[in-house]
Amino acid sequence: MLPTPETTARLLVTCPDRPGIVSAVTSFLYHHSVNITELDQHATDATGGTLFLRLEFQTPGLDVSHAALTQAFDEGVGRHFEMDWHISFANRRPRMAIFVSKHDHALMELLWRWQRGELRADIPLVISNHDALRAEVERFGVRFEHVPFSRDSQPGDEAKILELLADQADFLVLARFMRILSGDFVSHYPHRIINIHHSFLPAFAGADPYQQAYDKGVKLIGATAHYVTADLDQGPIIDQDVARVSHRDEVDDLKRMGRDLERQVLARAVRCHLEDRILIHGNKTIVFNP
Amino acid sequence: MLPTPETTARLLVTCPDRPGIVSAVTSFLYHHSVNITELDQHATDATGGTLFLRLEFQTPGLDVSHAALTQAFDEGVGRHFEMDWHISFANRRPRMAIFVSKHDHALMELLWRWQRGELRADIPLVISNHDALRAEVERFGVRFEHVPFSRDSQPGDEAKILELLADQADFLVLARFMRILSGDFVSHYPHRIINIHHSFLPAFAGADPYQQAYDKGVKLIGATAHYVTADLDQGPIIDQDVARVSHRDEVDDLKRMGRDLERQVLARAVRCHLEDRILIHGNKTIVFNP
Amino acid sequence: MLPTPETTARLLVTCPDRPGIVSAVTSFLYHHSVNITELDQHATDATGGTLFLRLEFQTPGLDVSHAALTQAFDEGVGRHFEMDWHISFANRRPRMAIFVSKHDHALMELLWRWQRGELRADIPLVISNHDALRAEVERFGVRFEHVPFSRDSQPGDEAKILELLADQADFLVLARFMRILSGDFVSHYPHRIINIHHSFLPAFAGADPYQQAYDKGVKLIGATAHYVTADLDQGPIIDQDVARVSHRDEVDDLKRMGRDLERQVLARAVRCHLEDRILIHGNKTIVFNP
Amino acid sequence: MLPTPETTARLLVTCPDRPGIVSAVTSFLYHHSVNITELDQHATDATGGTLFLRLEFQTPGLDVSHAALTQAFDEGVGRHFEMDWHISFANRRPRMAIFVSKHDHALMELLWRWQRGELRADIPLVISNHDALRAEVERFGVRFEHVPFSRDSQPGDEAKILELLADQADFLVLARFMRILSGDFVSHYPHRIINIHHSFLPAFAGADPYQQAYDKGVKLIGATAHYVTADLDQGPIIDQDVARVSHRDEVDDLKRMGRDLERQVLARAVRCHLEDRILIHGNKTIVFNP
Repeated sequence: MLPTPETTARLLVTCPDRPGIVSAVTSFLYHHSVNITELDQHATDATGGTLFLRLEFQTPGLDVSHAALTQAFDEGVGRHFEMDWHISFANRRPRMAIFVSKHDHALMELLWRWQRGELRADIPLVISNHDALRAEVERFGVRFEHVPFSRDSQPGDEAKILELLADQADFLVLARFMRILSGDFVSHYPHRIINIHHSFLPAFAGADPYQQAYDKGVKLIGATAHYVTADLDQGPIIDQDVARVSHRDEVDDLKRMGRDLERQVLARAVRCHLEDRILIHGNKTIVFNP
Repeated sequence: MLPTPETTARLLVTCPDRPGIVSAVTSFLYHHSVNITELDQHATDATGGTLFLRLEFQTPGLDVSHAALTQAFDEGVGRHFEMDWHISFANRRPRMAIFVSKHDHALMELLWRWQRGELRADIPLVISNHDALRAEVERFGVRFEHVPFSRDSQPGDEAKILELLADQADFLVLARFMRILSGDFVSHYPHRIINIHHSFLPAFAGADPYQQAYDKGVKLIGATAHYVTADLDQGPIIDQDVARVSHRDEVDDLKRMGRDLERQVLARAVRCHLEDRILIHGNKTIVFNP
Repeated sequence: MLPTPETTARLLVTCPDRPGIVSAVTSFLYHHSVNITELDQHATDATGGTLFLRLEFQTPGLDVSHAALTQAFDEGVGRHFEMDWHISFANRRPRMAIFVSKHDHALMELLWRWQRGELRADIPLVISNHDALRAEVERFGVRFEHVPFSRDSQPGDEAKILELLADQADFLVLARFMRILSGDFVSHYPHRIINIHHSFLPAFAGADPYQQAYDKGVKLIGATAHYVTADLDQGPIIDQDVARVSHRDEVDDLKRMGRDLERQVLARAVRCHLEDRILIHGNKTIVFNP
Repeated sequence: MLPTPETTARLLVTCPDRPGIVSAVTSFLYHHSVNITELDQHATDATGGTLFLRLEFQTPGLDVSHAALTQAFDEGVGRHFEMDWHISFANRRPRMAIFVSKHDHALMELLWRWQRGELRADIPLVISNHDALRAEVERFGVRFEHVPFSRDSQPGDEAKILELLADQADFLVLARFMRILSGDFVSHYPHRIINIHHSFLPAFAGADPYQQAYDKGVKLIGATAHYVTADLDQGPIIDQDVARVSHRDEVDDLKRMGRDLERQVLARAVRCHLEDRILIHGNKTIVFNP
């Protein structure tokens, strides 16, 4: 019998490393009759560093409520080891709001995979600064909101969006959203906004990366999924990929090939986020089994 | 402080899965004052399957001798959970004998990486059915033995080789060795002979794979590293890679590009073997963090 | 000014190689006031082999009608060098019929790219042995025909399809069509049916390739686009690609990752076909600038 | 019969594009009884741009001396079309001098491939600012010169090197040479010095790129081969490649994996240069059939 999403729970831990942590965590789970099916661990140093831990465990035999397990873990293990920790249970699907402008490829890739069951999430809302993709989105049974997001209206628009999202979304995905969110807005979703940038960061940050890549004459173009921070295009990188180009490829060819990269890289990053595979370490990510 | 190879030990476990195993193993290690720096686990099923476990731990604080730790683990954990297990300590370097025929590229890649410190192993011996590469090998300070291995002499030659290897080698690497070892010979090194096959197995098994690939008109050629079993080219696959080819590439081009693949794939497979990253499951491999 | 699809024409030539061919072809075009913007040539041997030639040229300055140019080429060049040749003019878009069963991913990828203008073709018809995808297809403004294609009805169904396609389609794409077309049917579209096979051919030909790949324990899975011949899964390979998998991936994961490969590889193959980049040589392909 | 290197000649052309060029070139060659086996062409625009042309042709039937063919081409074709052009005959092997510092991997890769016949060049000289690799180099029968190249001695050292190279080398390869050549030195070998940079340029130009990549947390590391210009790390890019890394990889792992990339990318770039596959267009390259 394979693990099923329905009975899978996941524990993520970040804490100062010291001997005994894995033993304490796994003994705790054992005593609550759950079976561990995946365990990934990363320590930044041999001693004295930071420990990152991800466990998948199966809850059919769980002997207490989710709330009771969570509280017991906090009291019995988490506080003792000064852990930053989180348990996700399968009966709670993460809620993902998607932001998009006019380019539909990244959005459609996500909606399509979601419809096919590849992404275990709810999508409460798609937000766009254009009305162009409304029909495309609503066809999937997903709510679409047009928010102008012009230079003048941005502060009010962001306030309106925060209201729309309140209690509706656990994280945001910028699927080629061509507006720059304010630092204040970003601070509401720390490490919970995923962006796809159409270059191999840190090369070609900023505007028109395919034109920059063309002018430079690189032989590979790339795409980068990263968490959004107040520093534009500088947040922790989740995933990247590249494709080979040649002198025959004009800027439009780079854009076309880049769309394929953006779709693939963003979809992989969102999937990793949904499966709790990503931990943050400074401005870098730990991604378990990407 | 990063983990150093000198104080790193590794535990590999295969056993029937049931709750409590990881807890028991990590608690055991904790009580002997070692710190776990990497832990990988794979369960074939949610319940009732097979568990595969790999731990790296640091031994500077170890409170008993290696022998005592090993015995204590057997008595306290291993037998209880019916484990097939093994602990490697860093002060014992694996001994790797290399077999080669006339093509030197795979052999040279290994010797070169070894000289540069990329492969933590001793190389007691290189064995060849030709004398052609003697000078190349001896220049690295490595012993070279020429064993004719003709059709008629093979049984005697294999006996002689077994004698040469006795107590000298922990595992064997066939670096483009163009003779087929007998099932009897192979049985002396179960899952301890690594071969590099010059195709993307299972395609083009047998002789002249590059000619086969050329005739078929494939657009990618490959190389496959696998453990040798009595079934020719059918043992558990460790690693594979491919390179793109086109109609412009003649058989000689495929061979040239294939040499690069063979070198890379074999070197990666040997490195994984040396770092105890590979477990066997039927005719397949578990490779942790390749 | 970049070449525009509207004024681009393409000449494809296959003929016995001998000196003077390129000179004759390019002099002919020069004398009709067209400018050559791409020229690819491949000779199988230094002398006495087969020559394959592809030219892109710009027709705004063309001094005669398309028909006149075609006839003049035949009389002045083609017959003389015993050429198998073809000129495509941009004002004639190739017509592509798509066959599909229940899996929608390959079909949707094509429709999506087509809608976005990435594939310069007309799509007169999608044919399926299920009615399930009708709405998906019709939403793109494309005609959908359900033909049962059961074991008993196949001969009649194929006749019906040939009738539907008559004068409507220049080539066919099997986008995960799970029925085996008869040799008779295939003979109506020689080297004009593209199939996507969900394995790295020639490995895992036949049914259930992902299960086969899983059982074998390969470390890379693949997809292959090829022209359909009377020999199942044996026709000339157009393009292939692979993705890395691990012991953590179950058959369902291979299928999911394989879908991405199938989409990408089929889309690239169709694009090459549409741009007249593929020539056939025995059971192999010449693909210029894939 | 396949083309053999011995009878292969190559013509490279850069010139203002206009109708009739390919016709004139191929007619010229036809009338001198040579057979064209490969022809690649690239025009930057539909009309009025720059034309880049590479031909491989077979000279066994050549009716005049190499010098006479060259002069006739100049008079009959080259001047008329304002061509920048060059013909290489196979009986003249390019002479490649290699510069290295302490890291031996890129140098050894080149020497090894050269010894195996993969690189059709003469190597008159290896120059290093350390004496450490003398024995390694001389073992291949190649001359080794140690030139200190300290901060103070550089001008005199460069003068000495220019003297050593005079009439000895057609182009230079910097195989991890860790000194910055002066603009004056570079001007003696315009677009004839190939460097391997240990990053995915333009990301991480300058010193310590692996440390920069580690600090940034990229998920792919790269290597870049480029022609050296007076602008450090900014010359035309010839080839690039990347490898996937993860949070488990420390800086030393990046360096190890990067060595593999550097070896592969530099060897490919040198091979393309030796086969006259590279044309320069501003600060970018045209690489035919890389």
